[in-house]
Amino acid sequence: MTGAGRSGGRAVLETLRAWGVRRVFTCPGSTEAAFLDATLDHPDFEVVLTPHESIAVSAADGYARVTGEPAVAYLHTHVGLANSLGHLNAARLAHSPVVVLTGLKPALLQSHRSFTCVPDTGRLVEPYVRAQWQSLRTEDIPADLNRAFRLALTEPAGPTWVGLSQDLMNDTCTAPVPDPQRYRPRARTAPDPELIREAAALLASADSPLLVAGAEVARHGAVGDLIALAERLGVPVVNEDRRTYERPGFPTSHPNFAGLYDARRATVRDSDLIVFAGCRCFTEFETPVRPDVPEGARVVHIHSDAAEIGHIYGVDTGIVADEGLALAALLEALPRDGLAARAGRVDEARGEYLADTGPLPPEPEGVENVAAVADALAEQVGENTTVVGDATTTGAILLRRLPQDPPHQYYTTSSGSLGWAMGAALGVKLGLPEREVVAVLGDGAFQFGPQGLWVAARYQIPVTFVVINNESYAAVAAALRRYGGTAVERGEFPGKDLSGVDVAAIARGYGVFGQRIHQAAELGEAMAKARTHPGPSLIEIMTDPDYLGP
Amino acid sequence: MTGAGRSGGRAVLETLRAWGVRRVFTCPGSTEAAFLDATLDHPDFEVVLTPHESIAVSAADGYARVTGEPAVAYLHTHVGLANSLGHLNAARLAHSPVVVLTGLKPALLQSHRSFTCVPDTGRLVEPYVRAQWQSLRTEDIPADLNRAFRLALTEPAGPTWVGLSQDLMNDTCTAPVPDPQRYRPRARTAPDPELIREAAALLASADSPLLVAGAEVARHGAVGDLIALAERLGVPVVNEDRRTYERPGFPTSHPNFAGLYDARRATVRDSDLIVFAGCRCFTEFETPVRPDVPEGARVVHIHSDAAEIGHIYGVDTGIVADEGLALAALLEALPRDGLAARAGRVDEARGEYLADTGPLPPEPEGVENVAAVADALAEQVGENTTVVGDATTTGAILLRRLPQDPPHQYYTTSSGSLGWAMGAALGVKLGLPEREVVAVLGDGAFQFGPQGLWVAARYQIPVTFVVINNESYAAVAAALRRYGGTAVERGEFPGKDLSGVDVAAIARGYGVFGQRIHQAAELGEAMAKARTHPGPSLIEIMTDPDYLGP
Repeated sequence: MTGAGRSGGRAVLETLRAWGVRRVFTCPGSTEAAFLDATLDHPDFEVVLTPHESIAVSAADGYARVTGEPAVAYLHTHVGLANSLGHLNAARLAHSPVVVLTGLKPALLQSHRSFTCVPDTGRLVEPYVRAQWQSLRTEDIPADLNRAFRLALTEPAGPTWVGLSQDLMNDTCTAPVPDPQRYRPRARTAPDPELIREAAALLASADSPLLVAGAEVARHGAVGDLIALAERLGVPVVNEDRRTYERPGFPTSHPNFAGLYDARRATVRDSDLIVFAGCRCFTEFETPVRPDVPEGARVVHIHSDAAEIGHIYGVDTGIVADEGLALAALLEALPRDGLAARAGRVDEARGEYLADTGPLPPEPEGVENVAAVADALAEQVGENTTVVGDATTTGAILLRRLPQDPPHQYYTTSSGSLGWAMGAALGVKLGLPEREVVAVLGDGAFQFGPQGLWVAARYQIPVTFVVINNESYAAVAAALRRYGGTAVERGEFPGKDLSGVDVAAIARGYGVFGQRIHQAAELGEAMAKARTHPGPSLIEIMTDPDYLGP
Repeated sequence: MTGAGRSGGRAVLETLRAWGVRRVFTCPGSTEAAFLDATLDHPDFEVVLTPHESIAVSAADGYARVTGEPAVAYLHTHVGLANSLGHLNAARLAHSPVVVLTGLKPALLQSHRSFTCVPDTGRLVEPYVRAQWQSLRTEDIPADLNRAFRLALTEPAGPTWVGLSQDLMNDTCTAPVPDPQRYRPRARTAPDPELIREAAALLASADSPLLVAGAEVARHGAVGDLIALAERLGVPVVNEDRRTYERPGFPTSHPNFAGLYDARRATVRDSDLIVFAGCRCFTEFETPVRPDVPEGARVVHIHSDAAEIGHIYGVDTGIVADEGLALAALLEALPRDGLAARAGRVDEARGEYLADTGPLPPEPEGVENVAAVADALAEQVGENTTVVGDATTTGAILLRRLPQDPPHQYYTTSSGSLGWAMGAALGVKLGLPEREVVAVLGDGAFQFGPQGLWVAARYQIPVTFVVINNESYAAVAAALRRYGGTAVERGEFPGKDLSGVDVAAIARGYGVFGQRIHQAAELGEAMAKARTHPGPSLIEIMTDPDYLGP
């Protein structure tokens, strides 16, 4: 260190602490020494070591999602950063305020494209963050970081990135840490009253309106407003499409709840007005055979981010505002009487939903039915349970059959980045220490994050991992089935077979209590054992390798 | 499929086959169905499934390195691609002809930024590839891929990338596959005769010249030329700096071999002429305290890539040419007699090298010495053994103590991308089926690629993984030691402790024969067991957690 003041590393720590950050999820290398050293002066500051960057970022994401507070992942050079990008994308889609810091080699070595250097590391993260910046002077570190925190939290929230060269971190600076309170304005906006009147008139006169609840409703604390509107109107509410589902915007336990948005469903097709609240419209998985918005239906889209409105399909009324303020204003603007009669509308929609959650076709003897597993899981999900879902083929079934009451009963990712729950569940548990946290993954997804087990064991984070092991990339086989070529003719599915992994044994290798079961009926007992076991545990349940999803 | 011809997926397979590719390393998703389906028509074409993209790319890299032939990793969307970037960087640094294909969602969905879409996926790989291109029409697929293969193989070789949208893959095309032979010119260049005369004169008159062998000498098959030159001159030869070391350019068993290039060594400091052949000069790990080239020494740098010459330090003579042609021309240009006398020069350099490979300081009782482990390993490395090295703290010790005769006795990576050997060793074994392949990793590196064990087990690739388990990120602690702050004062090293992993148990969970040992003396017996065991195996050897490297 040269000059007066504290090291750059210490300045980073001070800035983090000023923003209320009390732990960092990290997979460090040599470039993070000054920061790590500074943590020793603050025994209340926790360095959570993760043996793979994907875990660091997904754990930070999980924590940030459930608390709404910023979380920090501290990674090592472009090599470590690259390992985290898949899950950084998950944080982006969930508007999760994750601040990713990355230690870089000293400036001279960057010029020399030396060990673990590539030009312009920040470009790597550009698709995934709201802003990226590499600090240029030690003196600027507190302000650069402060800006990253501000942007991560400012609506629409999302990840940000700061690159920190080792020479700056080892050098000293005197710049004070800015006062975070002055950089954290509430960014809620109220809706345009004229647009609210327009939307209220549409709602009052529609014969068969449908409300669609998006993740942003829950993130912005507007679930109560949506419930009030739904009850006043007497209309069904569906949660948003599976492909954008991050968390429920409406309680599945509510009598007006009617399943998930899906353009193929009668409930959607028969609607003459659809109000999307806090949804992304849409994130398609395949080229749609019909539009995702039924022809002729009027569309109201409420979203706090103007860029989301009219993204693919046009809208009749687009309302840019905090979803809570907009929904409350809509309720207020409805006529006291004279609402169109919609007798039976909720019952019909709910009937369709309930019919859809009946038993799936029976499986061959000796292998367990995925629906039965989902139902057995559902029995284990209490009011105080948070499920962190990360299953591909089974994911759709879990969404249909598991209780999902906001704010905290269910979290998942629409990123397609497998293994997210292996880290996210840890962050969720740290953010919601009073809740029971159960991560539910397929075996394919598990393979993308086994290192999360070590973190769970090392820091005794009592998450229960449930791995539904069909020994397959069933999604690959399902794609071959849709393709309808030689694979279907021959019943051979290259790229599908993932058999031969003993997930419970791997868990034990990481120091986690592991159990393997073969029947859904055994799940209750296994969960009971997991609950009495101190620390984390894993339950592997074997299911039918030939089931390719609904 | 619409129209005449075969599917895009089939066109991809035909192009791969035309280039001699007989297997693909893949972690597929739904976008790769047309290609996977096409593979069913060719039972000789192998789809090697990997449960993490890092394994797909490092396995392809391993294969491409040892064969010089192109290898293909086929990944799924930006999500899968991101997971592979660290090891793609390893392929770049080794000039490994890896062609990465990535299935993308259909064009319409890309416009919609739909599921697993980001804008301009190819930008992600730009720091790591020679060229990236997303095919725009099905009709162009054969030519686009052909171009990717051509560039991957053309000097200076390296990875290339092609993005393949699902709609193009499912559509049909009639374009023929270009004849690869017409796109694979030999790109060797001969040196400028004038520069060779200049360099030969320097060599003839220098008092204490030193030859430095880089990885490119071995990759270009020029080891024999270097040996001939060294013997004619009677000078010592060192292999290049540890931080650029990918493979030996000179046999460690040769009497002129004198260790590794290191500016701190007397052998280097006392040289008045240094000839770098096929080296990168330099890839620094830390800001150098003295220049890596001794002051006053003359420098000749031979490299086939002009961009490598004079990168950090200036040269007296830079020769752009195939290293083999340049070294042979140098030998030819030396005067028949009148070489400066260098009696004792080889002995001195070799003496310094041998002194440096003596026993390291003894370890506390009950824990094993890393040098002893390296020496026990060295005893196991026969002429027909290939070591694939991927240890951080132990890596320097392995390089000093293990036999490394080109072309195939030792491979490693200078990328800093941990876990590389978990996939690379599989590709090495597939490329060199007659050789015994031993991957040597630290426990920290192992954690970045446990999924390679599943691939080894599933395809019965008989690699022996040796994991040197010090239960630590010793490199992090070493960095804190160099930083010299509170951590050193207190003897506390945050971010170091990786204890509690039973690597052998994890191996067994993946279906790999796993053994844990505690003494270097047990290694011989464990290796003997591994050799008689059919299929892959893993040996975990516990070492001192407090040893932080030389």
